[in-house]
Amino acid sequence: MKARVFIRLKNGVLDPQGKAIGKALTGLGFAGIGEVRQGKLIEIELDETDEAAAKTALTEMCEKLLANTVIERYEIELAK
Amino acid sequence: MKARVFIRLKNGVLDPQGKAIGKALTGLGFAGIGEVRQGKLIEIELDETDEAAAKTALTEMCEKLLANTVIERYEIELAK
Repeated sequence: MKARVFIRLKNGVLDPQGKAIGKALTGLGFAGIGEVRQGKLIEIELDETDEAAAKTALTEMCEKLLANTVIERYEIELAK
Repeated sequence: MKARVFIRLKNGVLDPQGKAIGKALTGLGFAGIGEVRQGKLIEIELDETDEAAAKTALTEMCEKLLANTVIERYEIELAK
């Protein structure tokens, strides 16, 4: 089973990297750029075939390693 | 309009960061971890309301700034 984990900064946490991207885009001549936030995308291949078990394992992985839950939130998406 | 841009390393391009995550997960006791790849997720708020125009602009942003198209591929997703 393939899973995608999205890790984003929580709302309210300053994102200087996103701000820099936004400014660079505006500087390149793109108009109408609002807020830009940068996050991480982690794709994991799992041997697990049961969806519920995979989700439980992935949640644990996020809590233990992948995300810094003080400032980041995570979202898990399982591919078919 | 809100857009999400996923930037991933092309297949065949070595991803040491992903490998490190995979090894760390296995080291933490998670079993059955296959390939792990890390990419970037960029969320952009656009004033543009036309989907086609937004997609064209986003493609140009990816080509010009967001992705290094030699080693990375990008995927654009528009939110409703």
